[in-house]
Amino acid sequence: MDGNRVAVIGLGSMGLGMARSLLAAGLDVIGADVSAERREAFAAAGGRVADSAAEAAAGADVAVLVVVNAAQLEAVLFDGGVLGAMAANGVVVASPTIAPDAARAVAAKVAAAGRLYLDAPISGGPVKAASGELTVMASGSDAAFARAQAALDAMAATVHRMGDAPGAGSAMKLVNQLLAGVHIAASCEAMALAIKLELDPKQVYEVINSAAGASWMWTNRVPHILEGDYRPASAVEIFTKDLGLVTDTGRTSSLPTPLAAQALQLFVMTAALGMGRDDDASVVRLYAQLAGLDLPGGGEPR
Amino acid sequence: MDGNRVAVIGLGSMGLGMARSLLAAGLDVIGADVSAERREAFAAAGGRVADSAAEAAAGADVAVLVVVNAAQLEAVLFDGGVLGAMAANGVVVASPTIAPDAARAVAAKVAAAGRLYLDAPISGGPVKAASGELTVMASGSDAAFARAQAALDAMAATVHRMGDAPGAGSAMKLVNQLLAGVHIAASCEAMALAIKLELDPKQVYEVINSAAGASWMWTNRVPHILEGDYRPASAVEIFTKDLGLVTDTGRTSSLPTPLAAQALQLFVMTAALGMGRDDDASVVRLYAQLAGLDLPGGGEPR
Repeated sequence: MDGNRVAVIGLGSMGLGMARSLLAAGLDVIGADVSAERREAFAAAGGRVADSAAEAAAGADVAVLVVVNAAQLEAVLFDGGVLGAMAANGVVVASPTIAPDAARAVAAKVAAAGRLYLDAPISGGPVKAASGELTVMASGSDAAFARAQAALDAMAATVHRMGDAPGAGSAMKLVNQLLAGVHIAASCEAMALAIKLELDPKQVYEVINSAAGASWMWTNRVPHILEGDYRPASAVEIFTKDLGLVTDTGRTSSLPTPLAAQALQLFVMTAALGMGRDDDASVVRLYAQLAGLDLPGGGEPR
Repeated sequence: MDGNRVAVIGLGSMGLGMARSLLAAGLDVIGADVSAERREAFAAAGGRVADSAAEAAAGADVAVLVVVNAAQLEAVLFDGGVLGAMAANGVVVASPTIAPDAARAVAAKVAAAGRLYLDAPISGGPVKAASGELTVMASGSDAAFARAQAALDAMAATVHRMGDAPGAGSAMKLVNQLLAGVHIAASCEAMALAIKLELDPKQVYEVINSAAGASWMWTNRVPHILEGDYRPASAVEIFTKDLGLVTDTGRTSSLPTPLAAQALQLFVMTAALGMGRDDDASVVRLYAQLAGLDLPGGGEPR
């Protein structure tokens, strides 16, 4: 059946879950990762793995690329031989958060090689990846959506179709990341102020959840602060990267993004203190170190 | 009955609604405002009005002060004679958003005059004020809460009790305003980026509402942008004031608030362009003027 041969390139915390969702949906999945450990994780889950990305992509109707940035995307597709190995008219489903200009450039090269391209950044985290309930913000031709349909159905609870031009999916993801990054940093700044003013952090959490200051990120991340648990559900360095893309895209588009720029610096400062791989709620520990705050659970640096 | 004689000082968009809610609950309410027009508005709603704040407060069990800032609060209470006119052991319910230090200072003077003080900032806007469904973030003694109970029941859907020390209610409100102000500015920055990147604003609104970038402010304010309606539901100058209090309180507490400071400057810039009394979603018109964006409905300056 069309679209049933799926290669998943990148078996990290997101890619592994997506590969498992594709497998659970009955598709013919082959995974690849540079790490033997990650390949073994998918094999242990009943998946088939290949020794290289190109081998996994051989004859694939769909190649889902779950890599970190545009450089990796290009390296795997073009230098790694994935594009040439895919079935004629196969579709590349590109998951990383990248600049819209980069998505357009990659899409043009994919089209020139006779394949389809879906600009399809993902949102939702490893848990939703594993349960096939991701949110996908995607743009591309009707043909690209049609070819990827079975795979998208398996991986996502919601697919937002942002039009037929590559770049729009990435643009939508950047808008979301601007808000998400600013809201995480604002949650940390607000909780630091609350603690400095001697309010009870748990009560502040509850009050804000039902007030005008509420956000999805407040509800989701502040419990990490209350529990003093900075193990990475999502790491600080995701936002040094993504807010960097936001501010770069703003700069090259002549659109000032002063709030995103300020939030970016807060993530960079937090990473500079050695917390780049800790949970992104660690921004509160930057404030704590600056102001000598006692965080719940101690909030010790990693 | 104890707590039934209530004076409402300040009959603006919030105070008028609160006075009406108190009236609807069957309490003995007298309103006062420097503006004859505002007094007439309450009289037209069936309320009793006094010629001065002190006259309204004569013998009052509860004086609800719905003024704009700490200077007005002190002027009305001390110079305006409200405090001295109240019943012995009457309670001052102070609604404005002020610095915690200011709340403590006023509370001490009220206590010295033998009256009770509730540090009780409000949230919810004119519609919830008129329906008696405000959120109140309050701190004060058990005696102060008891004396104000009937009035609070009439005005508020939720009363968050932040402890027995004046200052905590104001601190909680500042934490909320930090988040609310940053989220409004972030919503405007994100929508400006979306428009610059040629996304459909209505679709972006819907996608974010169900994504990790969601916030109460996004859901509430972005429709103003989509409708091109900048009539003030809540004005830019509310946040030039409240984020000023946030950053001042941070500064005097040695707690850096770089995100609040950046958001504050965006509101100041928007006000500087002549939009201080327009809706706070007007921050998007600052970005539009800087970057030459076509906003829905034109987004013309006032």
